[in-house]
Amino acid sequence: MEKLTEKEIAEKLPNLKGWEHKDGCIQKNYTFKNFKQAFAFMTRVAFECEAQNHHPDWENVYNSVSIKLNTHDAGGVTQKDFDLAKTIQDLA
Amino acid sequence: MEKLTEKEIAEKLPNLKGWEHKDGCIQKNYTFKNFKQAFAFMTRVAFECEAQNHHPDWENVYNSVSIKLNTHDAGGVTQKDFDLAKTIQDLA
Repeated sequence: MEKLTEKEIAEKLPNLKGWEHKDGCIQKNYTFKNFKQAFAFMTRVAFECEAQNHHPDWENVYNSVSIKLNTHDAGGVTQKDFDLAKTIQDLA
Repeated sequence: MEKLTEKEIAEKLPNLKGWEHKDGCIQKNYTFKNFKQAFAFMTRVAFECEAQNHHPDWENVYNSVSIKLNTHDAGGVTQKDFDLAKTIQDLA
């Protein structure tokens, strides 16, 4: 899986809603009604991560879930990150 | 729920295994065999958090789960944090 260039990332980002390219990752913060809703979302995402064999760096504080995606083995953002981001977006 | 003093926190910490008092929280990092094991642990913890109506600031990266506990309303660490930490420790 090849690391994407800045230009490639900039071209692909508009296909996602509200995701940013920052600190070598693509990232987004999702906010829910409460903890239960936030964790239910995380659980659905967790199954998809496992299916795609690609895992986020994510943080949860009560109703908020901050997700950062990159591909450690490639040293940057790859198509795998965009694929997972799209899946996450569809679940949110 | 009263904020605990530094002295009270220092006295209570040895009752937990490997938890530290840092940045106004009590915190610990747990490491598991893989993502599935880490997220299974988080799921069990999530139900207990909801039952105790007390929620962590936690981060997951693949097989690692970093947990920080404090009581926002009290502006520091309270007995609620130690109670939840004990529950988490028993589940790990």
